[in-house]
Amino acid sequence: MIAVDWGTSRVRAWRLAEDGRVRERRALDAGVMAVSRDEFAPILESMVGAWCAEGDGPLFLCGMVGGRQGWLEVPYVSCPASLDDIAAGIREITWARGRAFIVPGLRCQDREGVPDLLRGEESQALGAMALLPPGGATLCLPGTHSKHVLLEGDCVERFETYMTGECFALLMEHSILGRLANGRDIDEAAFEAGVGRASRGGVLPHQLFGARTRALVGELAPESVAGYLSGLLIGHEVSQLPAEPAVYVAAEPALRDAYLKALDLSGRKARPLDADVAAMGLQRLARSLGTRAAA
Amino acid sequence: MIAVDWGTSRVRAWRLAEDGRVRERRALDAGVMAVSRDEFAPILESMVGAWCAEGDGPLFLCGMVGGRQGWLEVPYVSCPASLDDIAAGIREITWARGRAFIVPGLRCQDREGVPDLLRGEESQALGAMALLPPGGATLCLPGTHSKHVLLEGDCVERFETYMTGECFALLMEHSILGRLANGRDIDEAAFEAGVGRASRGGVLPHQLFGARTRALVGELAPESVAGYLSGLLIGHEVSQLPAEPAVYVAAEPALRDAYLKALDLSGRKARPLDADVAAMGLQRLARSLGTRAAA
Repeated sequence: MIAVDWGTSRVRAWRLAEDGRVRERRALDAGVMAVSRDEFAPILESMVGAWCAEGDGPLFLCGMVGGRQGWLEVPYVSCPASLDDIAAGIREITWARGRAFIVPGLRCQDREGVPDLLRGEESQALGAMALLPPGGATLCLPGTHSKHVLLEGDCVERFETYMTGECFALLMEHSILGRLANGRDIDEAAFEAGVGRASRGGVLPHQLFGARTRALVGELAPESVAGYLSGLLIGHEVSQLPAEPAVYVAAEPALRDAYLKALDLSGRKARPLDADVAAMGLQRLARSLGTRAAA
Repeated sequence: MIAVDWGTSRVRAWRLAEDGRVRERRALDAGVMAVSRDEFAPILESMVGAWCAEGDGPLFLCGMVGGRQGWLEVPYVSCPASLDDIAAGIREITWARGRAFIVPGLRCQDREGVPDLLRGEESQALGAMALLPPGGATLCLPGTHSKHVLLEGDCVERFETYMTGECFALLMEHSILGRLANGRDIDEAAFEAGVGRASRGGVLPHQLFGARTRALVGELAPESVAGYLSGLLIGHEVSQLPAEPAVYVAAEPALRDAYLKALDLSGRKARPLDADVAAMGLQRLARSLGTRAAA
């Protein structure tokens, strides 16, 4: 089968063997935000058309590709949601290469009844579930809109979104803080200083201004502004995660390692998970769908 | 004399009588961010040249006009700072209409030693001081970079900056939340809902995402997104102010009233202050400078 995680800013595709092993992988900066409805099929053709031609398939897709701006809108499934609940929400679409199955996102409510939504991370959660000992676990899935996902038994119990990645981009590209910065490389010492400040408490809209004042008085080099801001934002996010048991983190290596470091600095246990965990989740969904997908 | 508060996004000028009464006022959207060094004099000429021609003067200026991107950089004065300390930091510049005096900003450090800076609000604080009973008070000065200023006796003891106004502008103009919004008018019920959510605790980067999810599921009309975001941001800021005694708020009427409402909704006592309080502070500084300014 072929697994595709089509997010807001990036699309990733995996060609999987029968046993779930990743045979090939591809990625493209062609997220849903930059793609119009009639471009999904041509982009898929360029990424996985050759795999299909060699007999691989069907296609399982997750992420914003199933959202309102996506290829086919697939309604959200409510939490708590098991593998079978999510599989039951899958919708089918046909294209030049045959059948494609689009996985639904999840919806939950926080303590005050405010809704939260995700698309794509349900497949990461299902993949992670297969790797972890049974019981419960907390996943941290960093990104433009980071998710903290609570697993209980074989269900996604609930989750919470943090606009960490988007806030960093906004501040660097458009704010008075970004104007003081020289480059986007993450200076490690500045990142640690930012995490430290966040983990000692205080409010973000005040602490962010500290990047400006420290730069103006010469305490923070222009090359270190990006690292300090990243540390402040990620530090605030991870402060909401439990200290124990270990939090599992899945993301591309650079981002994953930044989160592991921030969790460690703020006194939390953390373990890395495979970045291909979404592909594993999609494979589990394909199996759960069973004969319908195989037909 | 003529008082000028030249901020990041706006310049305001007051023509004052001997007794401090405001005879005339003018304002222009020509903040320091949009003005190059050789434009300060021509803009001043257009705003206050006629007053000077009729014999008024000298000019006292505060705000970012004294910053690194301003007309003349004036070093910060350290807190705690009295009226006389601030007056001693004033620098003089000459222009076609004679002498102009530029007031220094203030610098302080928070509990962790991170510096904080302001320019312009020192004059608002000195003006407020003259209106309030002696002793101590907390001022809330909303804006692009809101300030909470603690007065003790006749000193500005310390202060804290919140990027509330800038964060609102960033989110509305450049974020995924702004794309869901229809207009910038502040819907009152949505503003109150945002303040309420902020005042019950929780973290901002998660709560901001709620504006998106509530809009996506149809709980929040596109016309109400701006009000909800404003309520969340202002609600988080005012949650850092003491519940008692009353906080004094000085700003243009619409912004001042939004803060008064947010303070009230979150169980805090608040009182409005005159929006021209910066002019009063500049007049107090002029008097303190005494013969030097009159010469």
